[in-house]
Amino acid sequence: MYEVATRKERLSVISSILTGNPNHIYSLSYFSELFGSAKSTLSEDIAIIRDSLKKHGKGELEVIMGAGGGVKYIPIISKEERKELADELIKKMNDPSRILPGGFIYTSDIVYNPVYVEKFAKILWSNFSKVQPDFIITAEAKGILLGAQVARLYDVPLVVARRENKVTEGSVVTINYVSGSSKRIQTMSLSKRAVSEGQKTLIIDDFIAGGGTVRAIFEMMKEFSITVYGCGCIFSTKHPERKRIENYKSLFLINEIDEDKQKINIVPNYI
Amino acid sequence: MYEVATRKERLSVISSILTGNPNHIYSLSYFSELFGSAKSTLSEDIAIIRDSLKKHGKGELEVIMGAGGGVKYIPIISKEERKELADELIKKMNDPSRILPGGFIYTSDIVYNPVYVEKFAKILWSNFSKVQPDFIITAEAKGILLGAQVARLYDVPLVVARRENKVTEGSVVTINYVSGSSKRIQTMSLSKRAVSEGQKTLIIDDFIAGGGTVRAIFEMMKEFSITVYGCGCIFSTKHPERKRIENYKSLFLINEIDEDKQKINIVPNYI
Repeated sequence: MYEVATRKERLSVISSILTGNPNHIYSLSYFSELFGSAKSTLSEDIAIIRDSLKKHGKGELEVIMGAGGGVKYIPIISKEERKELADELIKKMNDPSRILPGGFIYTSDIVYNPVYVEKFAKILWSNFSKVQPDFIITAEAKGILLGAQVARLYDVPLVVARRENKVTEGSVVTINYVSGSSKRIQTMSLSKRAVSEGQKTLIIDDFIAGGGTVRAIFEMMKEFSITVYGCGCIFSTKHPERKRIENYKSLFLINEIDEDKQKINIVPNYI
Repeated sequence: MYEVATRKERLSVISSILTGNPNHIYSLSYFSELFGSAKSTLSEDIAIIRDSLKKHGKGELEVIMGAGGGVKYIPIISKEERKELADELIKKMNDPSRILPGGFIYTSDIVYNPVYVEKFAKILWSNFSKVQPDFIITAEAKGILLGAQVARLYDVPLVVARRENKVTEGSVVTINYVSGSSKRIQTMSLSKRAVSEGQKTLIIDDFIAGGGTVRAIFEMMKEFSITVYGCGCIFSTKHPERKRIENYKSLFLINEIDEDKQKINIVPNYI
């Protein structure tokens, strides 16, 4: 279906499509068919959108040449936005009512907040943007939203390891491990059909304390002969200093949770 | 910081901001400050973007008058996109290797696919767009991504009920219930600080078979004196015909899973 579209129309629509689908490559033919416009005209549109987004710190457009080429949107979160997010989060985390018996901390409202998590995902993604994973892996449940948002930014699927062996996963590989925080033996299962040998992945989780869960995912990936590029999370604790994993990036470092004084010492780790 | 922006620039950037934040109201002052443009000029920009998006089936802009007013984006998924999604999903679901022993079906790759789930969320949202929940609730784990995407569309938080009573949830309300599919007694917990009396919510889950889990969330909401508007899910089964809940909307109806013949009979329920 060909129809004539004005430049104003094209700018509005192309910008919304590209920024709504990060890292997804759209060919000029796709837009040409959508608007009935010449590719040379569309190249001009894209240059305008690229300059506009860049000027206002809203991300970049990358043009990929050759066959299979096109244009894709690269989300960028500006210095000001990073600072603003850190200030807001630290303020939110400093609420003493978050401190739970045993020195734990309530974070569910944060790790399931779609707006925050979208920003966390962008920052983590920018730390690992050089690698090209085939999928993102997390363990249920609190890392799922972050994992999905990071997966969206890479334009790859999310794979979720389960805490229990569920019948709806089909044939699974199961491993047992000791959780760093509870010191209890835990089980983790992954459906055999979820991944393939030789793939590459990035581990995403909400919280790293001892690193037991992430270590377990790492071991699980070894069972499947899958390369792990690294690990990204929202929160990590200073103690224990020796985690059971290396090469992880956390956005916020929890130095101390003082139950008696009802104080949380947390600092941003990405500015 | 005032700077002069051209119309082309403004169209590109405003379109990306509005469509990237569904149902979030942006005041004209916000854009006026961003671009250093007069509100009358911005009103024209918004009219252009509105007409362009509408013409290409990419959703609508709604202008809200008066104090607290502004403009917001209403995502709309066109008839063609709905049809395309249904065809693709049915084809994917018809793969016999999805059928698991006991007549269960593998859906993890679908319920954790960020691109599909974003579309499911838009369709479910359009079914419930008249209600204004204070939060979206789901039970971990497979409904989390869908719940988060629906929450994003309403611009409200997601609340997740846990399957186990975890120390990191603080003080919780716990209920026991019988799951429809496994017939086993299950536990569900919700942190007391996650919700407040008198709020309104919409339940989102991935799969409704007997309706036991959704019923449990419903009962849990009663404990907190919270109104439930209804329930939305991706898949529901024809059997049992009498579910333990009413007023639910499912996107795909599974009529039959025939283990012997390795056939799945599934139809879209939203076209």
